[in-house]
Amino acid sequence: MDTQYNIEKVPEPTLRRLPWYLSVCRLLKSQGETFVSSTRLSKETNIVASQIAKDLSCVNIVGRTRVGYEIDNLLDVLEHFLGFTTVHKAFLFGAGQLGSALLNDTGLKQFGLEVVAAFDNNPKIVGHSVAGIPVYHISEIATKMRRHNVKIGILTVPIDNAQEVADRMVVWGIKAIWNFTPLRIRVPEDIVVQNTSLYAHLSLMFNRLDSMEDK
Amino acid sequence: MDTQYNIEKVPEPTLRRLPWYLSVCRLLKSQGETFVSSTRLSKETNIVASQIAKDLSCVNIVGRTRVGYEIDNLLDVLEHFLGFTTVHKAFLFGAGQLGSALLNDTGLKQFGLEVVAAFDNNPKIVGHSVAGIPVYHISEIATKMRRHNVKIGILTVPIDNAQEVADRMVVWGIKAIWNFTPLRIRVPEDIVVQNTSLYAHLSLMFNRLDSMEDK
Repeated sequence: MDTQYNIEKVPEPTLRRLPWYLSVCRLLKSQGETFVSSTRLSKETNIVASQIAKDLSCVNIVGRTRVGYEIDNLLDVLEHFLGFTTVHKAFLFGAGQLGSALLNDTGLKQFGLEVVAAFDNNPKIVGHSVAGIPVYHISEIATKMRRHNVKIGILTVPIDNAQEVADRMVVWGIKAIWNFTPLRIRVPEDIVVQNTSLYAHLSLMFNRLDSMEDK
Repeated sequence: MDTQYNIEKVPEPTLRRLPWYLSVCRLLKSQGETFVSSTRLSKETNIVASQIAKDLSCVNIVGRTRVGYEIDNLLDVLEHFLGFTTVHKAFLFGAGQLGSALLNDTGLKQFGLEVVAAFDNNPKIVGHSVAGIPVYHISEIATKMRRHNVKIGILTVPIDNAQEVADRMVVWGIKAIWNFTPLRIRVPEDIVVQNTSLYAHLSLMFNRLDSMEDK
């Protein structure tokens, strides 16, 4: 696909909503549908139709009167735009509980993320592999960086190592850090950080549940 | 702890920041510190000191001039407030790749979430256990709901079952759904939904990385 997008022009709230539309399209396609109206997309996502039209126009998708959007086209454009059709290689740092869990999640690969190696400093894990992915000692990173063209690092170490490992990742040439630790890491401005703290989400849920029950 | 918080008064952005402060406190405590200044908290989290003071005052924590905040006190109040000191029982729906990964993550229990049972409809998994947690057929849910006082359901089924399973969870009495599917599920107003779509986070990271590289 040659279409070029000016991705800097796509606002973050739109970026956050695009995967919802993609999921609905995948679901409808699996049910044999070929077109989806903005009304249907709106019903399935709870997002108002005018917002959906605006979001999709950011990736140059325009619906057709009466029939709506062609599902195959929407899938192509969204999967491509969201980066799911390109393989992004990644290293994982910290092959403990959560790290191993992620190594076992083959869903990531379907969405464009291929973890090619993991690093740890625990002698019980180093030298073994998890879900077929080799675990090396963290001192081997330089060699492995030269072999693979890796720009993404997944950070799943304990919090007391998080900043130190993040610092080293940056030195070794990692450009984007997917931070699963509940610590807010500090990085240079040109490094991308995506925070995904399961525990922070958990506390939000507990809080909402408590306040619902107080009503 | 008897302190009562009016949790409805704590704004969501504050709720999202509180776990960051908690992590810093845990880290500093492990390093032998007993007090933390708002300047230090600010440096570690990249949040301005005045915002930190405002956030912490929402949970009735006020710093002392010169010494700052007592770490043990901060830890107590934040862990309690964020719900990490209470055990919240949960059922997990869909013991596939991601579901099994979560069952293996013992970190969740440390943060107050105990998965007591999982449900699936795959005969290869049903009747077995994952990380010591039994996997039942989804038809057994009514019996299990009566036995356990469970209000939280973790949704890790494939997207084509997501809405159906969510509907059934609500019928069975689940009050909060932790939705890991990339689908936006529809639920009644009094049901809490916490969306944690790893794949949506992945696409945000890919996009930021691409736009960084274009610079």
